[in-house]
Amino acid sequence: MTATSETIRPIGIAGATPRRLQSYVMGEWVTGTGRASELFHAVTGEQIGEASTGGIDFKGVVDYAKRVGGPALRRHTFHERALLLKAVAQYLMARKDEFYLVSAATGATKQDSWIDIEGGIGTFFAYASRGRREFPNERFYIDGPAEALSKGGTFVGRHICVPLEGVAVHINAFNFPVWGMLEKLAPTLLAGVPAIVKPATITSYLTEAVFRAMIESRIFPEGAIQLLCGSAGDLLDHLDSQSAVAFTGSATTGKMLKSSRSILEESVRFNMEADSLNYSMLGPDAAPGSEEFDLFIKEVAREMTVKAGQKCTAIRRTFVPEAFLSDVMAALKKRLASVTIGDPAVDGVRMGPLAGRAQVTEVRKSVEAIARANELVFGSLDDFAVVGADRARGAFFPPLLFYSKDPFGSPEAHEIEAFGPVNTVMPYARVDDAIELAKRGKGSLVGSLFTADDRVARDVVLGTAAYHGRLVLINRQSAKESTGHGSPLPHLVHGGPGRAGGGEELGSLRGLGFYLQRTAIAGDKPILEALFNKKPEDAA
Amino acid sequence: MTATSETIRPIGIAGATPRRLQSYVMGEWVTGTGRASELFHAVTGEQIGEASTGGIDFKGVVDYAKRVGGPALRRHTFHERALLLKAVAQYLMARKDEFYLVSAATGATKQDSWIDIEGGIGTFFAYASRGRREFPNERFYIDGPAEALSKGGTFVGRHICVPLEGVAVHINAFNFPVWGMLEKLAPTLLAGVPAIVKPATITSYLTEAVFRAMIESRIFPEGAIQLLCGSAGDLLDHLDSQSAVAFTGSATTGKMLKSSRSILEESVRFNMEADSLNYSMLGPDAAPGSEEFDLFIKEVAREMTVKAGQKCTAIRRTFVPEAFLSDVMAALKKRLASVTIGDPAVDGVRMGPLAGRAQVTEVRKSVEAIARANELVFGSLDDFAVVGADRARGAFFPPLLFYSKDPFGSPEAHEIEAFGPVNTVMPYARVDDAIELAKRGKGSLVGSLFTADDRVARDVVLGTAAYHGRLVLINRQSAKESTGHGSPLPHLVHGGPGRAGGGEELGSLRGLGFYLQRTAIAGDKPILEALFNKKPEDAA
Repeated sequence: MTATSETIRPIGIAGATPRRLQSYVMGEWVTGTGRASELFHAVTGEQIGEASTGGIDFKGVVDYAKRVGGPALRRHTFHERALLLKAVAQYLMARKDEFYLVSAATGATKQDSWIDIEGGIGTFFAYASRGRREFPNERFYIDGPAEALSKGGTFVGRHICVPLEGVAVHINAFNFPVWGMLEKLAPTLLAGVPAIVKPATITSYLTEAVFRAMIESRIFPEGAIQLLCGSAGDLLDHLDSQSAVAFTGSATTGKMLKSSRSILEESVRFNMEADSLNYSMLGPDAAPGSEEFDLFIKEVAREMTVKAGQKCTAIRRTFVPEAFLSDVMAALKKRLASVTIGDPAVDGVRMGPLAGRAQVTEVRKSVEAIARANELVFGSLDDFAVVGADRARGAFFPPLLFYSKDPFGSPEAHEIEAFGPVNTVMPYARVDDAIELAKRGKGSLVGSLFTADDRVARDVVLGTAAYHGRLVLINRQSAKESTGHGSPLPHLVHGGPGRAGGGEELGSLRGLGFYLQRTAIAGDKPILEALFNKKPEDAA
Repeated sequence: MTATSETIRPIGIAGATPRRLQSYVMGEWVTGTGRASELFHAVTGEQIGEASTGGIDFKGVVDYAKRVGGPALRRHTFHERALLLKAVAQYLMARKDEFYLVSAATGATKQDSWIDIEGGIGTFFAYASRGRREFPNERFYIDGPAEALSKGGTFVGRHICVPLEGVAVHINAFNFPVWGMLEKLAPTLLAGVPAIVKPATITSYLTEAVFRAMIESRIFPEGAIQLLCGSAGDLLDHLDSQSAVAFTGSATTGKMLKSSRSILEESVRFNMEADSLNYSMLGPDAAPGSEEFDLFIKEVAREMTVKAGQKCTAIRRTFVPEAFLSDVMAALKKRLASVTIGDPAVDGVRMGPLAGRAQVTEVRKSVEAIARANELVFGSLDDFAVVGADRARGAFFPPLLFYSKDPFGSPEAHEIEAFGPVNTVMPYARVDDAIELAKRGKGSLVGSLFTADDRVARDVVLGTAAYHGRLVLINRQSAKESTGHGSPLPHLVHGGPGRAGGGEELGSLRGLGFYLQRTAIAGDKPILEALFNKKPEDAA
């Protein structure tokens, strides 16, 4: 492991020399030693660099966060920390063009990059604004009203929330190298907890570029954020009971992490976003020709192809009234047929490749499992055109539409998340059946419903809410301003029960709870008033 | 396994014939078959019965809760469920004398039984009242304000909370056979989720008696509550992602349960209250002779002896300014010397036995470990008087006071929870040192501070809050109405980070969150208004 101070250019952009990514730990950029993972350009397949955390002292990284980053953040009030977020967001926004250049190597279209980069920065802005509007200018905040505990009412209770004194470890998925980092950092840093960011290695070069900009801004106090590009090694073993792990990724990895000693023995908090078989449902009223029908077709096709379907919120299961089935199929096929696949740098290309060849193998395996019980009605794994790139070298994958004849009879399409442009259409007879199908996903991040019938909306919302973290209702009135099926927003919780991991992120200030300890304080009324009405500067 | 319909009398009371406890599953009382655990009277040591769940179909129990209990509860609104709690609380209160009789067999004094029995029933009353005051008369509730999601403000988001559609499994500790059951049932049933109650076997005869009364009341809908007296078998293996486990007990058992397949793979929610090394601190201002000093001595001695120290919130570590050390020691010794141990039925007895001989062995082992690094300054494991009972047959244990000369140097007293009348006094030089000592517990349920100095109060509260679920401030003003160090209250959260398990119960409506799914709903403003402003009866 070696430290460097020279200026390092991002990899992935045209003309860059392949190099080993760096990690930012204990106040410096270091290059890991030993065996590295190779990193490839998603479009060209060329190796653009490699990543390793070999030689990094993970215990040292944890200790540094607790010794340097935590105290520095906790010296600030919520308002002050919110202003740090805002300043960093402004700084990153001014440099966003660089990030778009790097993002292209992940196979992202301009639109895909916008979601990742500006969506991520937008989360910082949102928390910066909420933090100042909804938190006090204090180092703790008061949760809920005073509670009279005694008959005479002189002995009272209040709840306060204070930052955990450990470290937050963020283990992010490969599909949103920027948003994934920033959506977790925003609530964490606003809460006053230092973070160690561990991006998925495959796209970590983009994370490194944005992280480097944050360090160059010198806005966050030293130790507030650290970065590991490469394996997380034995990092989790060094966490203690004041720490928290937020994980986004596969259920398999999640289960392994959850079984870590520190999680089981030290009650380290663990938040997980994992596999999710999100649904979209066409209402029984939304017949072909209705505006809701057209909106539905557009959204399903878009959700399949944005980010080449590599979104944990993408529509995987599409519920359609039996009577409209053939119309839906025809309309979806037509729309998907118009999607040009290729190098997003080429004009007219609507969908780029997956993030890497390893993903192609992975998604192919899932698709083959789904195909065993469902009929492929659009697309071909082996026969599709690619524009402006070599199909054999890039990580291209075609949109595939399946049809499940008997959705109650076969579990595959409810259980296998093919993390690419893959979707299964399922007919339903009655709304109650569609609700039952939604639950077969055993817990998902999001469901959406296209209907103009408020009664159907209510039935579906109350019928499927327990199994979903977010539900979106779209009709002709809302279409113009709708934020769509797939977009997590800083204001709304992001996460889902069961298979989706049981986690909860974002949701405005709700997302901070994971990084705060809520403590009940009981005492004489005057002493509680003295404690909590004083400004921190008065009391220091 | 055999079912019976005859009237069954509680065991433990004078003249009762020893029998095998029953479980209430799938709508009937059944007696488990096969090997049973023996149950003993804590005072006399006589066998009073036995318990086994042999032959019970645990998968059937889970399915029954989901198929019968869940839908029945979810048909009610929050207000209706609150009224059920109130009716059951009134019913139990009218029969409380029976429960006191059974409780005596656990070794409880009248005061101990009051905490357990009336404290438990009080939790039902509290939730009944809060449920009607703070929830809508609906089957869901709206969490937080509407969020404008679009520029024009027509697309908005709201969060609703709905009951989980699985089952709650409550695994309770032996020390509060009634309160432990009722404090978990109150938020669960108010949330609309059916429960399976699994009391610690050793005192489950008292739980059985109270549970039987609840069933006899016929107030809760069938399937809402089931009871398992004996082993939980493979119960947890049958839980799915809509279920939740609330566990109170040892860290060792907790770790085992947390590693269950369903918890790791199905994201079954898991709430844990485990070992806790709670502290009480005497402020540097509270010199001998001050009211705070006297209040402190009284509370520490009381916390050691109430329930014979078998309270997860009892004071285990006592922080004292160095200068007051000898005065504190002398005062505590004097007070402890006046505690009469014996059969609580005998006049003048202040402290009963532990819950059973197995507990004596267990606590003795912990005490021996603490004694290796700390000096025993009051009490003797082998030399203490017992009034009105045979010391060799009952589960008696003497109050023991340890002194830790070098509290920073030896971890034992910070880490070993001797679950009996055992406490370690630790001197401190500066308030900051005492705060540091508090953290050595690595997360506790509760800390308390005796001071008249608001500056000290603020430092200790903000200094130790991150490591505690509850903090209590006591001074001469609050003394009269103080609810004390050790009492969890329905209004305040109960739980602590780290070693204490990382769980959170009670805290008024906060305790319901564990049994509800929070879901973000996004849509056009008018449709959200239509969904959420309608009364459920209008929409059905």
